[in-house]
Order: sequence, then structure tokens, then C-alpha cells
Amino acid sequence: MSKNSLLKWLQEGNISIPGVLLSQYKEMNLNEHELVLILHVISYIEHGNEFPTPVELSSRMTISVAECTDMLRKLIQKGFIEIKDNYSADGIRYERYHLDPLWEKLIDQFLLSGKKEEALKIQQEET
Amino acid sequence: MSKNSLLKWLQEGNISIPGVLLSQYKEMNLNEHELVLILHVISYIEHGNEFPTPVELSSRMTISVAECTDMLRKLIQKGFIEIKDNYSADGIRYERYHLDPLWEKLIDQFLLSGKKEEALKIQQEET
Amino acid sequence: MSKNSLLKWLQEGNISIPGVLLSQYKEMNLNEHELVLILHVISYIEHGNEFPTPVELSSRMTISVAECTDMLRKLIQKGFIEIKDNYSADGIRYERYHLDPLWEKLIDQFLLSGKKEEALKIQQEET
Amino acid sequence: MSKNSLLKWLQEGNISIPGVLLSQYKEMNLNEHELVLILHVISYIEHGNEFPTPVELSSRMTISVAECTDMLRKLIQKGFIEIKDNYSADGIRYERYHLDPLWEKLIDQFLLSGKKEEALKIQQEET
Repeated sequence: MSKNSLLKWLQEGNISIPGVLLSQYKEMNLNEHELVLILHVISYIEHGNEFPTPVELSSRMTISVAECTDMLRKLIQKGFIEIKDNYSADGIRYERYHLDPLWEKLIDQFLLSGKKEEALKIQQEET
Repeated sequence: MSKNSLLKWLQEGNISIPGVLLSQYKEMNLNEHELVLILHVISYIEHGNEFPTPVELSSRMTISVAECTDMLRKLIQKGFIEIKDNYSADGIRYERYHLDPLWEKLIDQFLLSGKKEEALKIQQEET
Repeated sequence: MSKNSLLKWLQEGNISIPGVLLSQYKEMNLNEHELVLILHVISYIEHGNEFPTPVELSSRMTISVAECTDMLRKLIQKGFIEIKDNYSADGIRYERYHLDPLWEKLIDQFLLSGKKEEALKIQQEET
Repeated sequence: MSKNSLLKWLQEGNISIPGVLLSQYKEMNLNEHELVLILHVISYIEHGNEFPTPVELSSRMTISVAECTDMLRKLIQKGFIEIKDNYSADGIRYERYHLDPLWEKLIDQFLLSGKKEEALKIQQEET
């Protein structure tokens, strides 16, 4: 293995996600395919491609382009992902994925699960 | 949201994986369910539980306990995960998952994909 | 470079810290030496050594053992790090560093800086 | 603490560095101030500011603008950081920091430390 290989490895970087996303995605009605699709979107954005196509995304997944298109559409409908317009310095409009809705839902879910736990504790102490 | 909530969020921590795992799992004949199962195993290990049960793992996934058991068995058979014996300070034997085989396979795949790219480049330059 | 080298690199892992710690440590009256000392403590804990000695810590830093001992003492006095007693399965007491006080201080600082920003905005809008 | 606060916390993200950088910076003749300055540069780049000024960098550190300028100059001279020219879509030239030299040095240092360890082992086995 050459030094260049390790350099290339480093440039691919790491993807870091909140532990809470991994422990709560199921409660948020996401399945494993949707979770991994979201990870790919995050990874593409971090590498500077803010609007990866279904062809690019599905090429790294075990799903077809059509299934990927469909999954993206549903994630947008269910309010996990947003498409936003941006304008470059020279005024050209371009689209990009925006994941703030996902993080907001995750925070809501996290707070909800905390309340459920507390309620359960109080219930257990009462009996 | 209370300060305690954010502290709990922080304690759940982050899970960080090499970008190469995300871009190459498909080439390694892993599917999305297997990838996410591996992420859960990594997460449990990082939180000090080195041998999470299928019940624990499947509780956070959209698969049944039986499917999870089956998936773990296959990941061991295909050489992605190992079960290793460890001994505690007082001599009690316990089992734990070991992910070095996964990282070795990932390195192999990474080097292979680099060679393929180079071969493709040379081929393109010749024509 | 051999495959073993890359495997060793992977096993050293990554250290991941909240961006807020990097942007706010100065406001928390921590200097760069203290920040890096804390990073080393986090790294040792993640690798299973929960009570690294000043000799171990200073061996990776540009400070002497005495300076490291002194710095640790001050971090404990100022309430960033705690030493906690733990008991192993066979009842043996051992000490370990605990970083929850740091995270609590960081959250406080983060909320404070948010309030300051808002106050500044309101002030600017009024003038 | 409001939901917005946690969202802002999430948007600040995490900074993730190879464990090897933390264990080897001293051997690479970097001190704690230089390491933290590099972390700030990485963090600014990840947030889309590819050429943070000494004023921006020093505002988060316990050093003056002049000291920061001097430190950046030395890091460039010693070959840890590079300034590269880039061109935007509309042909405007801009400068940005480039950290590949750091990663190359880190890989060299990592391989060197591996060889030293092996040599030491062989020596110990011979005696």
C-alpha cells in the first residue's frame, strides 16, 4: 500500500452522526434504507456536492435509481429533507438538499423519548 | 428543553465511521440492513456493551429478533464480525464482538478499487 | 506501507469533539494547553484507560510531568474534570476521570453566548 | 433551553481528527498552540470559510492577531499548511488553505513511529 492510498483514505474523511439518530430513527418511522440514504446525502454534502442525483446515490446502494427517486420523494413529503434554492455569487440559481427538518424532528423525538422515560419512572415508583 | 436533556444528548455521543465504509459497503456485498446492524454493534461497543444481544440490537431496528440473529450469524460466516473470548480481571470468561475482520476487508476493498481506477485510466489513455 | 499499518491507523480511531468546545473554550477561561490536555484525557478514556497518569499525558505533550500535574489539579479545582471512584465486578475500587462537569460548563457557556447574541441584536435594532 | 438552541448546537457540528494526529503532533515538532490553530483552520474550512483571517482565528484563541499571523507563516514555511489559488465559476481568483501537506507529514511520522517500534522489539528479542 502506497502513501498515496492512505492520503486518499484520509481525504474520504469520516462521517459523524449523533448517536441519538442511530438509536431513534426507528421511532421516527425511518427504516434502514432511508437512514442509509440520508447518510449518503450527508456524505455528498460534506464533500461539496449539495444536490446528489438519484443516479449518484443509488450507485452506492443496493437499490435501483427508480427506488431511490421514490425514497427521496417520500423523505421530502414526510418532512425529513428539504430542497432549497441557492444563488451563486454570479446570480445563478441552484438547488441543494437541506437537512435541518431532519435535525428538528430528531430533537422532537429525543425530547419525547425523555418524557416517556420519566413518565414510566414515575409510574413505576407509584406502584 | 432542560440543560439535562442536552447533557444526555452529549452523553449519547457521536458515531463516526470512515467515509470509505459508506462508499464501499455495496462492493463488499453488504446491504443496508447489514451496514446499519454493524453501526449498531459499533455504537453498543463504544458505550461499553461489547456483546449486545439480538434482542437489544433488533429493538432499535425494523427487523425481528429472528432476522437479527440470522443476520449476525451470516456476518460472522462471511467473516465481517468475530466473536472473541475475553477474561475479566477475576478470571471470568466473557464473549465480545470484534470488528477487525471488517476493517481488514474494507482496506482490501479500498486498495482493490484504487487499482481498478488506475487500470481504467491507463486503458483510457491507450485508446 | 503495509495493510497492517492502515489497520493500526484505524484502530487509533478518531477523536470527535463538539464544534462548540472549539469555538467557546476561550470564553470558558481555558487556554490551548488545557484544551489539548482535555483532548488527551478524552482520547485515553476512549481507548479504555480511564485514569491516565501525568507521565502518560505529558509524554504526548510539550509540557513537563510537573506542569501536567499542576494543570490537572487546576482543571479539577476549576470544576472542569472530576475524579470519581468506581468499583470493578470483584469489588476493587479504582479511580477514573469524569468529564460531565466540562460538558455542563460548555452547555452553560453555549446558552450564555446565545443570549448575548440576541441581546446584541435587539440593541442594534433599537438604534 | 429552547429547541432552537439544540438545533444551533447541531449546526455547529463536530470536529473529528485522526487519533494519530493527537498522539504524534509532538513528534512532528508541533506544539499545543499550533495544533489548536490547525484545528481552528479545519473547523473554518468545514463551515465553508476556506481562508480564515488571523483576526478570525485569533478571536477564538488566547493569542494576539500578530502572534497568530506569525504562527500561520511558520506553519506554511515548515510545510504543514499550503495556500492554494482557486477559481470560482465566474473566473474570480481566491485563496484557500490546503491541509494535504499536514496529512502527508502525519502519514510519514506514523510509518516512522511504526518502524521504530519494530526495531525496538527486534532489539529487545536479541538481548
